[in-house]
Amino acid sequence: MDVAVVGGTGAEGFGLALRLLGADHSVTIGSRSAERAGEAVAKARETLGADALVGGAENAKAVTGAEVVIVTVPFAGMIEIYGSIASSLQPGQVVLDATSPLMAAVGGKPWEALRPWQGSAAELAAALLPEGVAVVAGFHTVAAHTLANLDREVDSDALLCSDDDDAKRRVGELIDSVPGMRWVDAGPLANARLTEPLTALIISINRRYRVRDGGFRITGRESWGAPK
Amino acid sequence: MDVAVVGGTGAEGFGLALRLLGADHSVTIGSRSAERAGEAVAKARETLGADALVGGAENAKAVTGAEVVIVTVPFAGMIEIYGSIASSLQPGQVVLDATSPLMAAVGGKPWEALRPWQGSAAELAAALLPEGVAVVAGFHTVAAHTLANLDREVDSDALLCSDDDDAKRRVGELIDSVPGMRWVDAGPLANARLTEPLTALIISINRRYRVRDGGFRITGRESWGAPK
Repeated sequence: MDVAVVGGTGAEGFGLALRLLGADHSVTIGSRSAERAGEAVAKARETLGADALVGGAENAKAVTGAEVVIVTVPFAGMIEIYGSIASSLQPGQVVLDATSPLMAAVGGKPWEALRPWQGSAAELAAALLPEGVAVVAGFHTVAAHTLANLDREVDSDALLCSDDDDAKRRVGELIDSVPGMRWVDAGPLANARLTEPLTALIISINRRYRVRDGGFRITGRESWGAPK
Repeated sequence: MDVAVVGGTGAEGFGLALRLLGADHSVTIGSRSAERAGEAVAKARETLGADALVGGAENAKAVTGAEVVIVTVPFAGMIEIYGSIASSLQPGQVVLDATSPLMAAVGGKPWEALRPWQGSAAELAAALLPEGVAVVAGFHTVAAHTLANLDREVDSDALLCSDDDDAKRRVGELIDSVPGMRWVDAGPLANARLTEPLTALIISINRRYRVRDGGFRITGRESWGAPK
């Protein structure tokens, strides 16, 4: 798949880009600065080899034409970043929003959650994008450190919320293509109100146990993915 | 341990009572009606044998002197129930609140969460109890159906939140004594704002996949329990 990662020079975005490149997807790393995007491209090639299908560009250019656009930016910057890419997106494109609304955005603690007026960051994202662009919320339970550590498979489920089942499945396929990763259908977009605060919970647990790769698994079935 | 289960005739409370009795704890099943408590005691003896350490009483009597009081009641009834037991509780006793604030409490859907004024049901519980009674929030990720199915071990972690580390550890020991169960230190009582909505998420996932025993596991370490 042809994927753009907005905020792809950050720890979470870059780790995700590496995982997707490793699964043979074509990834464009987006950044506010074309120069920093280029540096991340060089770093990705250094890690994965010169034949990795990676490119870099300013965010607005990176998202143009991408099948799936993954947005991994701090909550404090999300309104500005979405404003900068909105006019480059077309109906039919899919946006995976991984924003976690944390108190850190207003100078508080990253293990405390913040509730945006719209209910969740993903619902705020949907309000900032043109009609017809599908929004999927996900990846709040996968730590940047876990993604970046390529020696180990990711031991955490990706809980996906969206009102568009096709978009959810498309993002789900992308996730399932990464060895060890698994997606779970966590319901409509409004359920991001339930899944986004999991980032604060995981940060709190990691901090208490002095670990960096705590994650979540849903139990009760052998396989999840799309419901039958 | 000497445990009282308030709301012990409900599905969640009764399932938990059976698990604790199976681990050789002494359990008093509390109910609004002494008669229904008695029926639950008979049912527990039928399931586990006549030598199970089980008794029954009205809630206020059931909690008197118990080392740990587990409250498993619907959110709509919690203020009334806490009002009925508050004066029977003494400083030093530990209350494990398992209440999930769901929209079902106001005629809405059980897969949508409700936010009480105090932030979480557990913080509301603390406000309703006498000073010196320790409140621990937990068990929002363990389904009644899972607890009642004694043929299978419980495949879901109990995330415990409390401002009292000793109380948290005492409840944690109780949980660890049940085969297959495991507790995770999920931080201060206010973190119940993050863990209580997990009930809505699990109900949503169960519904979507048509299963009844979806649960949560925290990954990233072999063992959890008390942090080192």
